[in-house]
Amino acid sequence: MPTSLKSYLNGKWVDGSASPATLVNPSTEEAVATASTAGLDFAGAARFAREKGGPALRELSFAQRGEVLRKLAKLVGDAREELIGLGITNAGNTRSDAKFDIDGAAGTLNFYADLGTKLGDGKVLADGEGVPMGRSARLYGQHVLVPRTGVAVHINAFNFPAWGMGEKLAVSLLAGMPVISKPATSTALMAWRIAELWANSGALPEGAFQFVCGSTGDLLSHLGAQDVLAFTGSSDTALMLRRQENLLKDSVHVNVEADSLNSALLGPDASAGTETWNMFLTDVVKEMTQKTGQKCTAIRRIYVPADKLDEVRDELVARLKDVRIGNPADEKVTMGPVATAQQLRDVRAGIEKIAAGAEIACGGSKPVEGQAKGFFVSPTLLVRKGPKADDVTNKHEVFGPVATLMPYAAPRDLVTLVAAGGGGLVSSVYSDDKAWLNETVGGIAPWFGRLTISGEKVAGQTISPGTVMPSMLHGGPGRAGGGEELGGLRGMSLYMQRVGLQGPRPFVEAFAGVKSATPSPP
Amino acid sequence: MPTSLKSYLNGKWVDGSASPATLVNPSTEEAVATASTAGLDFAGAARFAREKGGPALRELSFAQRGEVLRKLAKLVGDAREELIGLGITNAGNTRSDAKFDIDGAAGTLNFYADLGTKLGDGKVLADGEGVPMGRSARLYGQHVLVPRTGVAVHINAFNFPAWGMGEKLAVSLLAGMPVISKPATSTALMAWRIAELWANSGALPEGAFQFVCGSTGDLLSHLGAQDVLAFTGSSDTALMLRRQENLLKDSVHVNVEADSLNSALLGPDASAGTETWNMFLTDVVKEMTQKTGQKCTAIRRIYVPADKLDEVRDELVARLKDVRIGNPADEKVTMGPVATAQQLRDVRAGIEKIAAGAEIACGGSKPVEGQAKGFFVSPTLLVRKGPKADDVTNKHEVFGPVATLMPYAAPRDLVTLVAAGGGGLVSSVYSDDKAWLNETVGGIAPWFGRLTISGEKVAGQTISPGTVMPSMLHGGPGRAGGGEELGGLRGMSLYMQRVGLQGPRPFVEAFAGVKSATPSPP
Repeated sequence: MPTSLKSYLNGKWVDGSASPATLVNPSTEEAVATASTAGLDFAGAARFAREKGGPALRELSFAQRGEVLRKLAKLVGDAREELIGLGITNAGNTRSDAKFDIDGAAGTLNFYADLGTKLGDGKVLADGEGVPMGRSARLYGQHVLVPRTGVAVHINAFNFPAWGMGEKLAVSLLAGMPVISKPATSTALMAWRIAELWANSGALPEGAFQFVCGSTGDLLSHLGAQDVLAFTGSSDTALMLRRQENLLKDSVHVNVEADSLNSALLGPDASAGTETWNMFLTDVVKEMTQKTGQKCTAIRRIYVPADKLDEVRDELVARLKDVRIGNPADEKVTMGPVATAQQLRDVRAGIEKIAAGAEIACGGSKPVEGQAKGFFVSPTLLVRKGPKADDVTNKHEVFGPVATLMPYAAPRDLVTLVAAGGGGLVSSVYSDDKAWLNETVGGIAPWFGRLTISGEKVAGQTISPGTVMPSMLHGGPGRAGGGEELGGLRGMSLYMQRVGLQGPRPFVEAFAGVKSATPSPP
Repeated sequence: MPTSLKSYLNGKWVDGSASPATLVNPSTEEAVATASTAGLDFAGAARFAREKGGPALRELSFAQRGEVLRKLAKLVGDAREELIGLGITNAGNTRSDAKFDIDGAAGTLNFYADLGTKLGDGKVLADGEGVPMGRSARLYGQHVLVPRTGVAVHINAFNFPAWGMGEKLAVSLLAGMPVISKPATSTALMAWRIAELWANSGALPEGAFQFVCGSTGDLLSHLGAQDVLAFTGSSDTALMLRRQENLLKDSVHVNVEADSLNSALLGPDASAGTETWNMFLTDVVKEMTQKTGQKCTAIRRIYVPADKLDEVRDELVARLKDVRIGNPADEKVTMGPVATAQQLRDVRAGIEKIAAGAEIACGGSKPVEGQAKGFFVSPTLLVRKGPKADDVTNKHEVFGPVATLMPYAAPRDLVTLVAAGGGGLVSSVYSDDKAWLNETVGGIAPWFGRLTISGEKVAGQTISPGTVMPSMLHGGPGRAGGGEELGGLRGMSLYMQRVGLQGPRPFVEAFAGVKSATPSPP
């Protein structure tokens, strides 16, 4: 019998009563654990967060909340080897994939711990400059951010059990909101172990963190005006959540990170052998294969000047052929399986969908040779000539090691093609041609939450576009869900109410924790 | 035959083909105009905005867009007397009510014109400080805001035909987004005349402004990922809009200002005759009667220390008895009718709902004496003793000259009662007791978008809480819709995409229009 993973609700580890889901090892298809939340008291959990966790967190200053986050980061870091093992077993991660996830979690927690230290003893964030309102300087306006008094429910995707949980939690706790966190059940083992370490450490105020291992049951139906729902996952699930009547009726703050047809654009000036050219190839291969392409920020669409198409295709194919697919328990393996049988079916169907209008340069939907068991798929590069805005490439995200290479002519056409993806998380641009960069970056900017620009001047220093940095925004318009996470302080506004205060300057400034630049009037 | 009010779409004034709505004079119930949009080409209007208006606006710098707004403000100001007449005729406004609306529109347009001047020659807004990203200072992060490339649809409430339209338009155009503006049909006459002045002035780039007089037909079904919907009105209508599948599916940015049970709180220290006491009474009477109580920011719930209840009631009743109700064409009248027959029915029903658990101190749901025609209702003060969180007072907004006076004991109870309103636009607090202010303001802040604090130090200078200032946030959580408008630059982020740029510092800073504080590396 595999382990039954409990949930941590109302201050206790509890098990559901029926119909457990089974978590498997995606390399071997063997069961590794089960999880059930049937019959658990979600209404009580939401109350527990609001009545215990919220008040306890709001008693702490930003600096004190930061210290809590620092302890949580250390618990993750200290358990790194154990957690890597769980990533290999339950998520098909290579060691490198698992480290990326775990270190991302610890790094983001530490970033927000440092931000807490910097914010200091206050409990209210001043938002922007003060505004003199009246005939004298005595009547003064100042915006502040104060923590919402509800509960933040976090629903995370299967691809980053550690980072996804840590990232949302860091921002929420620093803002002063208690969390109920739910990982995707299929790869929950790593998140569950982290939750266990956190809950049992005593580092967290009572009620500040709860953990759901399995379905959220009726939890969302208990959310109201002061609550927050932060979701990462597919746009189909996002749509289902958004339709929920009480969320719409009570204007519950919902943040969504969903599908994203991220693109990589090679400038007309880049040629074989230049630094810019190499950065482009390195990023594309990394983004296609890291986490077996199961990243919301992975590159799905690759646009190159028409006259470079064949050369780029050959270079990418050569590099992708070096990828060693297999059970990542074997250290020589460089890419593991996708996470679930369903994912495998979806990825194969997706490849076929795109292949209907494109040529397969390498990989494809067929089973990987030598793998009798497990959810393996080959890194797959498709080439679509004469791309058009209404192509399936711009509509369907294949969540695996799959991307489509396409040619472009003028920058304007390129902008139209990139925009046809309907909004995404990140796009990366590789060029040293300023005029082309200005036109392209300017054209595609409204369609993304983040853009990376790589060129000779930053050779050897760039961060791969799929790496989400806590200092930079994570989220994107349209298909990507319209959300905003991270970005330093920016991400905290999801969990805080912005309030404009108008009143006597000394009171307003003291409340906001702002020190008057000029002495306030007597 | 009353005038038929045309819509301004696709660069032409056009009339619907059937089923016109009739606009009446709410004092006399006489028809003043009709409006129909049946059969109009809304899909074409959305395209026209995106293809003509957006590019034309985005060609202009912030300063140039500001100059457009300044011209629009002047057109409103120059037509002030004519517009006041339309407010009296079609909205039941007193001269003072109409001026409040018209001057609010012009003032907000001028505020954003000045902001445009201040923002200068750029077309991109830098958002916050830059972030060094890499091992050297060359790799640099900077967030920017760029205009969305779609259309902004503005749906306004019947109470502020001028201000509502001007406020949303100012922010949208300065951000660089073209507008399709729709006033509530019942009081559209003033908005229609302003639209006519604007459209015929040549001040606006082609396609930057379109105007719908009547139903929006199928317009909303044509909105997508780069479009915006800003709505002010009832929470029932907001819910209906929010449910619309394409808005949810494409993550259309929707901003809602809806119902709001705004409150006024008198501190335990205020006593009869003090400045603080007088400010409180003046604000309450003004907010109850201005625009016949038809303001989303009007005071609906009045909380006073239990031992001051009778005294406050008597003072308010005495002042409300001085209100002169009637057709505002008569200059001696100080409060006109509500806007429509339906509003009158709703207000009367609302008074009865609240009166079921409260005592009517003055006014009530009965017809106003001496008014045979018109939608008149008396200013109505109800007194509810022993208020509780689940009272109807905390759930139902009566959108007329109606408020409920209630006693409170400890600050904690007061916070619970105020919060029970489920989220609002503004609350006003009257006290000079710092400890009480800190506890009360801190407790209620998460439930409002704006708070005004009045005390001796700002006597004679305060702005009535119901007056929306362009420099301060307008919006509130929960019942109020969870939206954010105005607040200077803050309101512009609805119409702009926030993008994190990561790349070579010189390019990133030039794109963002940021001048390096330190010289960038060679």
